[in-house]
Amino acid sequence: MSLFSRDPAIKVLSFNLLDMQTVGHNNYGLWRHPRNRKRSNNLKYWTDFAQSCERALLDTLFFADVLGIAAGYGGNNDVALREGMHVPLNDPLMALSAMAAVTTHLGFAATVSTTYEAPFAHARRMSTLDHLTGGRIGWNVVTSYLPNANENFGIAPDLYTHDERYDRAEEFMAVCYKLWEGSWADDAMIRDSDRNMVSDPAKVRRIDHAGRYFQVAGPHLVEPSPQRTPVILQAGSSGRGKDFAAKHAEVVFIGGRSADAYRKNARDVRASVVSHGRAAGDVKILAEMGLIVAATQAEAEAKLADFQALSSPDGYLSHHFGSGADLLKYDRNKTIEEITAEGGPGSVFLSHYNYPLGTTVGAVLDQATRLDSSRALFAWGTPKRVADKIEEWADTLDINGFLMRQMISPVSVDEFADLLVPELQRRGRYRQRYEATSLRENMFGTPTPRVRSTHPAAAFKYPLSR
Amino acid sequence: MSLFSRDPAIKVLSFNLLDMQTVGHNNYGLWRHPRNRKRSNNLKYWTDFAQSCERALLDTLFFADVLGIAAGYGGNNDVALREGMHVPLNDPLMALSAMAAVTTHLGFAATVSTTYEAPFAHARRMSTLDHLTGGRIGWNVVTSYLPNANENFGIAPDLYTHDERYDRAEEFMAVCYKLWEGSWADDAMIRDSDRNMVSDPAKVRRIDHAGRYFQVAGPHLVEPSPQRTPVILQAGSSGRGKDFAAKHAEVVFIGGRSADAYRKNARDVRASVVSHGRAAGDVKILAEMGLIVAATQAEAEAKLADFQALSSPDGYLSHHFGSGADLLKYDRNKTIEEITAEGGPGSVFLSHYNYPLGTTVGAVLDQATRLDSSRALFAWGTPKRVADKIEEWADTLDINGFLMRQMISPVSVDEFADLLVPELQRRGRYRQRYEATSLRENMFGTPTPRVRSTHPAAAFKYPLSR
Repeated sequence: MSLFSRDPAIKVLSFNLLDMQTVGHNNYGLWRHPRNRKRSNNLKYWTDFAQSCERALLDTLFFADVLGIAAGYGGNNDVALREGMHVPLNDPLMALSAMAAVTTHLGFAATVSTTYEAPFAHARRMSTLDHLTGGRIGWNVVTSYLPNANENFGIAPDLYTHDERYDRAEEFMAVCYKLWEGSWADDAMIRDSDRNMVSDPAKVRRIDHAGRYFQVAGPHLVEPSPQRTPVILQAGSSGRGKDFAAKHAEVVFIGGRSADAYRKNARDVRASVVSHGRAAGDVKILAEMGLIVAATQAEAEAKLADFQALSSPDGYLSHHFGSGADLLKYDRNKTIEEITAEGGPGSVFLSHYNYPLGTTVGAVLDQATRLDSSRALFAWGTPKRVADKIEEWADTLDINGFLMRQMISPVSVDEFADLLVPELQRRGRYRQRYEATSLRENMFGTPTPRVRSTHPAAAFKYPLSR
Repeated sequence: MSLFSRDPAIKVLSFNLLDMQTVGHNNYGLWRHPRNRKRSNNLKYWTDFAQSCERALLDTLFFADVLGIAAGYGGNNDVALREGMHVPLNDPLMALSAMAAVTTHLGFAATVSTTYEAPFAHARRMSTLDHLTGGRIGWNVVTSYLPNANENFGIAPDLYTHDERYDRAEEFMAVCYKLWEGSWADDAMIRDSDRNMVSDPAKVRRIDHAGRYFQVAGPHLVEPSPQRTPVILQAGSSGRGKDFAAKHAEVVFIGGRSADAYRKNARDVRASVVSHGRAAGDVKILAEMGLIVAATQAEAEAKLADFQALSSPDGYLSHHFGSGADLLKYDRNKTIEEITAEGGPGSVFLSHYNYPLGTTVGAVLDQATRLDSSRALFAWGTPKRVADKIEEWADTLDINGFLMRQMISPVSVDEFADLLVPELQRRGRYRQRYEATSLRENMFGTPTPRVRSTHPAAAFKYPLSR
């Protein structure tokens, strides 16, 4: 049941925290900051952190993930290991139940790749977590690209092209939807003591999926969970990826090198969503964003300087160019389109960034390594000043909210909760309290935790259409 | 550090609870019992339950698992679904961190099959959990056998013979050992702020495993966890399975149709362990066991009668013969060796039970479905009477402890803690408190959480022997 009662002219925003169960993620070098208490191996750290996120009334705590080490920058693992750049990296699903146990409304979004998992096992894990969290699970669908991940799973470099990874992902989604939506009737679990019947066999079906990549018989091993299909998140950057996101994603997060690039990305996503027969508003678009907030502007400037002093350019470079596009090899005055036209190492990946024509290697390197105003959607200052920026972005970029990076943890979230949330609440831009329990209801104000009828998963609802 | 200070003549026993994240597991029909509060989908149920297990000072809470529905008995899924016999069944790893967060010493053993997982992803999950639990994770290695599991993972029925599953399992273990023991040096994580080095690249290695079933490059994505290799548990019943267990397992659990069968199984395991260059005592042998304890004998008898009245023979039959050996199809007077000689459906599986010569179909069916003295290692009565039985089993069967079945939950564990543990403690048969934090130290009294030097994983310790 939705408890939304806002002035519809004011856009209440969705705030989500981007994290990764590792040392460094978009904050390279800051692990050395004396107030950074992040320790991925420590369960108490995660349960405390989840409570901080819930106190901030976030929609989700979002976990990125990869399945290998990015060795492109520098040509081996050394930079990544030195910087703690996504290594060591824990499995993103393992700590979720502990975080769920100490919270009641916060959603959890975890990244899982369709390239390296079996859909039956994955669907079961998601359903289990959706039960254990009371319907607070989201799945960030990725198709992966790291050469080392392929090596870790015995996948030859040329086994899947980029398009084939998406073909596999499409079929993977269909298998999951069949298991989540189509295998068990809503009333299959009868728990009828008199007849000694736990579930009614007449209301549980095999799915008998037989496709190009997967053969999966079913039935699903888990009874219907609150949301059945978890909230689907995606960040499509390539043409095929954008199309996939427009079809499947309920939440799309976008990046960009400039406000204009964000705006264009958001417009592209909306148009593509509509072309898939969905309403433009069916998808929440979240913009990747960073902020530093403090009681006074001087304090915020001091924090920024502090973070800048500890920031490690190598960490940023290995993140941005880890898949093989080492821009340090090129002349700073060369343009990105010249490099992609030549087809050098990593150029396919570079092309997905959609750099404006004329962008030089030097400009890209500077933007990647500097923690300053060269970044799009990065703000620092008083609550008023940062809130002004947030409102400006929200109102001019056709977005629904933000995926926030952290600087240091849990300080960034705690300061966000204490300083910025009250300011945004006063402006009608932030929820006063959680509206419901399930992630889907909280994010979309839907009347039930289930997927909308226009979502592709809905086509697989029990009874199966045959 | 071990705090053991026992009279070495008195055998302190290891107690472990056998469970499964499902409705019915060795207690079919008892889900209807008014005091049974088990709800696998409820996280609070699991965290409360883990605390009950820790209050009972158990070594481990042990989760069985399968990846499909057993359809052998009755020829389809109907009996399993009606009885809640291992369906619905949640993923066994998802709730562990929540249970770990509310306990400090209890170990957790989870079943994961080597037939359906990728070793890189599995090794990462185990390492993550070993970190989050502070070294309290055990892995029950299975190779699986359910036809429906094969169907759920697109594995043709004839792709892996029984022996090939064990070949794959052998290689799976080697990959995991390389990742757990050989990829990161103990001092690889230096966290050196001055040099901005999280880990030392010179102390992290690829494993470059290239085998028949797996190609896995590494490095492991997770830094060394307290135990590195989780405690390895196994129940080998076939010849090949017993040999596998004797080589890899640190804990072997055994069953049997009679005390003699248990004794023979234990003797076989010890002999086989020695043949692999390990000490007979390197392996803890746990006997599957059931008990009902009450303040008075009359109360215990009443409980037994209560449980018997609710027990469902169909549930037991579908469990025991779910892999295809439907004994109801045969004459009650026929012997098991006659059936296995004929090679009928499920006969290979039947042969793994090692029934004594002359055992009839009728005897097997009766024992499978009755909750009474026809079961080996099943006792009910006062704490004194049950403790007498436990001491008798412990002293005559060459075992180190027990894997206990539950009747109703959490009542069975709470009554065990309140009534039987004090009696066993008085007799010097039960720990007074946990000796250490890691599972391996608690179970074995080893001086560190790491595997013994005689365990096969030790051969892969960093630096890799090449």
